[in-house]
Amino acid sequence: MSRPPPGTRADYRVFRPLQTRWMDNDIYGHLNNVVHYALFDTAVNGWLIDAGLLNPATSPTIGLVVESGCRYAAEMGYPDQVTAGLRVGALGRSSVRFEIGLFRNDAQSAAAEGFFIHVHVDRATRRPVEIGSAARAAFSGLMLDPPAPKG
Amino acid sequence: MSRPPPGTRADYRVFRPLQTRWMDNDIYGHLNNVVHYALFDTAVNGWLIDAGLLNPATSPTIGLVVESGCRYAAEMGYPDQVTAGLRVGALGRSSVRFEIGLFRNDAQSAAAEGFFIHVHVDRATRRPVEIGSAARAAFSGLMLDPPAPKG
Amino acid sequence: MSRPPPGTRADYRVFRPLQTRWMDNDIYGHLNNVVHYALFDTAVNGWLIDAGLLNPATSPTIGLVVESGCRYAAEMGYPDQVTAGLRVGALGRSSVRFEIGLFRNDAQSAAAEGFFIHVHVDRATRRPVEIGSAARAAFSGLMLDPPAPKG
Amino acid sequence: MSRPPPGTRADYRVFRPLQTRWMDNDIYGHLNNVVHYALFDTAVNGWLIDAGLLNPATSPTIGLVVESGCRYAAEMGYPDQVTAGLRVGALGRSSVRFEIGLFRNDAQSAAAEGFFIHVHVDRATRRPVEIGSAARAAFSGLMLDPPAPKG
Repeated sequence: MSRPPPGTRADYRVFRPLQTRWMDNDIYGHLNNVVHYALFDTAVNGWLIDAGLLNPATSPTIGLVVESGCRYAAEMGYPDQVTAGLRVGALGRSSVRFEIGLFRNDAQSAAAEGFFIHVHVDRATRRPVEIGSAARAAFSGLMLDPPAPKG
Repeated sequence: MSRPPPGTRADYRVFRPLQTRWMDNDIYGHLNNVVHYALFDTAVNGWLIDAGLLNPATSPTIGLVVESGCRYAAEMGYPDQVTAGLRVGALGRSSVRFEIGLFRNDAQSAAAEGFFIHVHVDRATRRPVEIGSAARAAFSGLMLDPPAPKG
Repeated sequence: MSRPPPGTRADYRVFRPLQTRWMDNDIYGHLNNVVHYALFDTAVNGWLIDAGLLNPATSPTIGLVVESGCRYAAEMGYPDQVTAGLRVGALGRSSVRFEIGLFRNDAQSAAAEGFFIHVHVDRATRRPVEIGSAARAAFSGLMLDPPAPKG
Repeated sequence: MSRPPPGTRADYRVFRPLQTRWMDNDIYGHLNNVVHYALFDTAVNGWLIDAGLLNPATSPTIGLVVESGCRYAAEMGYPDQVTAGLRVGALGRSSVRFEIGLFRNDAQSAAAEGFFIHVHVDRATRRPVEIGSAARAAFSGLMLDPPAPKG
């Protein structure tokens, strides 16, 4: 179970400030491992909303999480300030893999790195739909090595 | 069950910015009523920490919540930004009543107002202890009508 | 700030078993004060669903919380089992006050007692609506001293 | 991004009943993806406590999560009852990989499957320590294919 070193801020494309909460600290006095996923969710959906790609109440297409994961490199805890770095790691017909690094206060090395895969589905039927061109362009802009344009 | 009108920012003494999270929105599409208490907890303890009155990991005296409450005047939801206004409403030998207003984005009228009463206890024995002079002075500074000095 | 003694199981009408979670314990090693409200919410809505009075996804009338509160008498913590006792304390034209006692494991005296007031509203417009006769009868059945029938 | 079919109850060794909560449902009307990790945490630590391997308040050795993950196969939501199946997937000198399946109500196929890796550390120094013989024996008992005894 050896592990690669954590990434740095240079490994991410956009950044979002996030707050911790008092109750995030568990009995061990640090951010409970579950909270990192609440931060991932907030960072990605916040970026989607700010990019005009999601209205939580009304969008006919929504992203459902089909897989997620996190590696924890260092402890964080309330009242730390957290910066989430975002990038897109893979982009399919109806799915997109967001990768997130969580940086504690001024640290350059990530305290935790994770991902989640959103499948775009029709809000009512929950059946997968193709990612639209505007979203695709925005997601490509978050890739470290965007795919070469076709044609 | 008639209700007084909600307070305004002028009714509070200090202010702290707070974030909402994606999962704060419940099935009704708004901030679940429980979340407001997580925001109260975060605002009050954050102020205590910044004021030098609490180290969550090491303080020999801690504040335990013995009563709390909230009136909800308007809906909020992620991705709203929230500002918490704080004041102290009562100050006893070992207890202090914090009152908190939550303001949605730029609203001047509180979306929710609540309180919680902290009893200062010894961290190990959980027995009440008298509030120290530094904390008492800081709490008095958060009162709208501070008690007149004695003597 | 003197306080009445906590109620007992005899003060409640129906009971629901509730679980605690690992992350409910905060840095002080006990159930964070916020969690009690998540338990209230779960106990009351669970009773409403089981009584056939609420379908969270489709009911045209929903209950929104306009006020809540809790008094904490004793610490609880994961992995405690909790029993929630429920009663209705007041019943108005469109509002109902649920009162909840949380009992730790086999304790007869409540570790915490709280309430929340639901206003029945139209799901779309969020305007208050009169509580229907089936719900009113069910709520009356949770009162310790039900109102005498009229006429 | 093709995916293997979800496991069944036969793929797990022990089972623990878990409850959902009202606020677990997010704006999409289903269990938010974060909640699954709170259930993992609760199932694993509950088993550790019941097995006499962990006292959250006093154990000199604790397990810290260094990696976790989840694949989501089907939606769940409050008021579903959940059964967590547990097994141990790998056992190292100081680390153990717990694998968890979450089963919705009476379903035989998992709605979600995940894992987390606990590293045993000294509570004070947070340095890895070797898993003791009692814990090692208990963890081996949760493996589908326990390692052959040496000698």
